[in-house]
Amino acid sequence: MKQTRQTNISRRNFLAGSATVAGLAAAGSVLPTITAANAAAHEKKNALPDFAAWKNEQAVIVHSRSGIETIREAIGSGILTPIDNLYVRNNLPTMTDEAIGDKDKWTLSIEGVKNPKTFTLKQLKLMSPTTMAAVLQCSGNGRGFFAHKASGSQWKTGAAGCVMWTGVAVTDLVKMCGGLASGVKFLTGTGADMPKDQDPQKALLERSVPLNVYKDAILAWEINGEDLPNVHGAPLRLVTPGYYGVNNVKHLNKLAFTTSESQVRFMKSSYRVTPIGTKGSSDYPTCWEMDVKSWVTLPVADKGSVAAGKVTISGVAFGGLKEVSNVEVSVDGGKNWKKAQFIGPNLGKFAWRQFALEADLKPGSYNVVSRASAGGKSQPELRIENERAYLHNGWKDHGVTIQVA
Amino acid sequence: MKQTRQTNISRRNFLAGSATVAGLAAAGSVLPTITAANAAAHEKKNALPDFAAWKNEQAVIVHSRSGIETIREAIGSGILTPIDNLYVRNNLPTMTDEAIGDKDKWTLSIEGVKNPKTFTLKQLKLMSPTTMAAVLQCSGNGRGFFAHKASGSQWKTGAAGCVMWTGVAVTDLVKMCGGLASGVKFLTGTGADMPKDQDPQKALLERSVPLNVYKDAILAWEINGEDLPNVHGAPLRLVTPGYYGVNNVKHLNKLAFTTSESQVRFMKSSYRVTPIGTKGSSDYPTCWEMDVKSWVTLPVADKGSVAAGKVTISGVAFGGLKEVSNVEVSVDGGKNWKKAQFIGPNLGKFAWRQFALEADLKPGSYNVVSRASAGGKSQPELRIENERAYLHNGWKDHGVTIQVA
Repeated sequence: MKQTRQTNISRRNFLAGSATVAGLAAAGSVLPTITAANAAAHEKKNALPDFAAWKNEQAVIVHSRSGIETIREAIGSGILTPIDNLYVRNNLPTMTDEAIGDKDKWTLSIEGVKNPKTFTLKQLKLMSPTTMAAVLQCSGNGRGFFAHKASGSQWKTGAAGCVMWTGVAVTDLVKMCGGLASGVKFLTGTGADMPKDQDPQKALLERSVPLNVYKDAILAWEINGEDLPNVHGAPLRLVTPGYYGVNNVKHLNKLAFTTSESQVRFMKSSYRVTPIGTKGSSDYPTCWEMDVKSWVTLPVADKGSVAAGKVTISGVAFGGLKEVSNVEVSVDGGKNWKKAQFIGPNLGKFAWRQFALEADLKPGSYNVVSRASAGGKSQPELRIENERAYLHNGWKDHGVTIQVA
Repeated sequence: MKQTRQTNISRRNFLAGSATVAGLAAAGSVLPTITAANAAAHEKKNALPDFAAWKNEQAVIVHSRSGIETIREAIGSGILTPIDNLYVRNNLPTMTDEAIGDKDKWTLSIEGVKNPKTFTLKQLKLMSPTTMAAVLQCSGNGRGFFAHKASGSQWKTGAAGCVMWTGVAVTDLVKMCGGLASGVKFLTGTGADMPKDQDPQKALLERSVPLNVYKDAILAWEINGEDLPNVHGAPLRLVTPGYYGVNNVKHLNKLAFTTSESQVRFMKSSYRVTPIGTKGSSDYPTCWEMDVKSWVTLPVADKGSVAAGKVTISGVAFGGLKEVSNVEVSVDGGKNWKKAQFIGPNLGKFAWRQFALEADLKPGSYNVVSRASAGGKSQPELRIENERAYLHNGWKDHGVTIQVA
């Protein structure tokens, strides 16, 4: 077994657990480090499931076997989210090594092109590779802020991460297949993770996105420079940058250019944005493009008070399909706003940017919120109420209230 | 204990070891995946030392306790090198948790400024953070290509990585200290890792770099979004982007602006570029700025033959202090060159770029080399001979010879 990167001492501190909490809170710690205090606060939560046992237990909240959230301050101050900390959302059980088999022999069929072909993963890896940083975000991220107790994991900010994907561009594959067939309107990805003997209409993970998405999409076998772990869709995943997580089909074995949307449940009725009390159907919008969004990651509210004086407020912002252009921060719940600065390199329009603002804070209570703009649109103040609590990008709910002493 | 990210099956294959080698070679595998074959080739090497036991054993070559190299194809096709795969070069024993103590209370003193101050790490973390991607490379990277058996680890290409650092800008600290003292000419970093009761002249890790380096330097507490592991310099490391690894002082506890270079051995006589047979002294150049450099990472030479037809050649290139502008690839040992394409986002001038070229290769033997340019300078063909085999950026030695069948 590998040792963890962090040391035995810090691991022992973590195990010592709640004894440390009061001490840290009293000291007014607001450090971005994932501390024992924080981990202790979550220690009564569920244990990591076996297929994700390698995740950093101090960085996540385990809602269930199919919902593991990154804690607010653990999404990665190095822009990219370490995969040990990255959230997990599985609609179907994670494929096992046995079910995946020899990865080199994994096949991907391409349909809806002039010359349909089937490639092995080994063949794809011999093509010219491409690398792209992109935000991966669950459609339900922010569900935990809704008041109506929508069904599903009660995510706050952490069903999202920014990761580096490596694979092959879909445009390159289309060229090798002689171009698109005529009349196609959607890019439809199909996963191989349907459990045996199920009804495909109910259990096949298949998603359609508008045709143009293929121009930016890639088929990835690596995440942050490492082989895709099973739980994130090994050995091959469709990456639809700027589109919500569910469209980034895991365990991909078919990519089809189609004239209509898939008719399986995961497309037709799940992931539909409907009025509260209403079931999903194709009459309602599906979870496709991500809207402009941001949130504060530091200081966090549950680490005791912050020392008065200069306080750095930082967070992340992204624009879906548009490059984020501007972030403002307010320390009074949105009455007054100041422009924040972007930090670090720009990893491209599909990645998030880190931002920071230095504020001079006297003792008191502060509601710290952020508001991003992209492509001429700014985040709205409020969420749009909907049955399954999807697409939340309202700035008000995403803020934190901190105590300055 | 955490499970590793990769699966039990692939781990079992790895352990099965040499039985797999012949099979893979016969199949002509040239995949970027770190295969059992590759791992098996290194299995007679030393085991990972305890302080680096969490490294990916399939991705590294353990030269010694103080020299662990990343294998050619494991530096990360996602631009950034996963820290599980990142090389290790330690001049002094890695500090233990016990010696580091409470990281929040770690102190950094700043001297050679108008108002010298001492900061705790906790205080530094409350300042406005900064993030930067940079190449980290040992001065001796490429030593294994020299013919005279220079003393030290026989690195080929893998004493280098590109990582994301998070910390605080040195310029921000200088401002807080009232600006630079007059007459200073060097930035001198000192590590806290000298073993007890040693002679500082011989065992203090202290390095000086030209003053202007401070404008880009940061003090980092995170690498790739995770807390710095001890072996990489926890809890605080000086990052001097564009400068060789040794100048990026680990376990940093003093940063001084000085009027002259440090007089300790690691500055005065070690890391000096001297004629073969000559000892180091301050009469000779030290290992400071990195020169423009590139190498091919795929296909690799030790994985059997490559299938004839379209073959993608890829690698990395960087320019030290200058952004890399151009990479050419030759498949005939440098007689003819073709321009390669850059892949993926540009993480800034201190990071490396990935490049690729698609070649159409008939059966035969090919010597594949790459040559990068930056700031108007191109890599030379040959190495410059020197006693300790430093600063090798000649393109000829860094190539690979592949068999196409």
